[in-house]
Amino acid sequence: MNKIEHIGIAVENLEESNALFSKLFGEPHYKTEAVEKEGVMTSFFKVGPNKIELLEATKPDSPIAKFIERNGPGIHHIAFDVDDIVTEIERLKSEGFDVLNETPKQGADNKLVAFLHPKSSNGVLIELCQEIKG
Amino acid sequence: MNKIEHIGIAVENLEESNALFSKLFGEPHYKTEAVEKEGVMTSFFKVGPNKIELLEATKPDSPIAKFIERNGPGIHHIAFDVDDIVTEIERLKSEGFDVLNETPKQGADNKLVAFLHPKSSNGVLIELCQEIKG
Repeated sequence: MNKIEHIGIAVENLEESNALFSKLFGEPHYKTEAVEKEGVMTSFFKVGPNKIELLEATKPDSPIAKFIERNGPGIHHIAFDVDDIVTEIERLKSEGFDVLNETPKQGADNKLVAFLHPKSSNGVLIELCQEIKG
Repeated sequence: MNKIEHIGIAVENLEESNALFSKLFGEPHYKTEAVEKEGVMTSFFKVGPNKIELLEATKPDSPIAKFIERNGPGIHHIAFDVDDIVTEIERLKSEGFDVLNETPKQGADNKLVAFLHPKSSNGVLIELCQEIKG
């Protein structure tokens, strides 16, 4: 794993949270992107080599809507950048991690992604992501 | 803010979680450190420019013990690296953030640290940290 690619933060109101995180970082988000399959609207901030992804639910059955119902707004997942997501999925399965996506899926920000179930990783929802080249 | 310095993860058993995160990252933690004032034992993993800090409570009234009682093990805080923590504290106070340590305190890993109350930062416990030079 190369670095923390981003931290995903569940928010109730993207516009208000964009304003808040702009104050935190001293600069605005650099893009927004809808991920319709997941029922979320996202925005991204750069912090040096890392990113912060804010996630607002756009449907009541979105995983983010359910997360906020249970926990309130806050940190939702950590994403690690990997060079070869297929190899990492195999490696982590063989180490006993519960990989939720045996075949990586298209995520936000031009990435192939796969998640590890928090039960196998100390209560932390972990995302692997590999940039789609070309 | 220069980068995500580390993500702090609350764990129930540091030895077991060290083994788990070693499998996740494919390499072991590089140090452990007790922070007696906070009632925690910590261990650190490197992931490129970032770190993961595991935190186990060593006292029943430790903030980490209380966090695990309420939430179970999982992500506890995000720490951002800053060049000048005193200036950042002043800037964030003036932007309306609730800074819990108006004077930075000594943290783990040779850092001056200050926390922002999650209520003022979208449910996220945020740590600022500045490396102590020399």
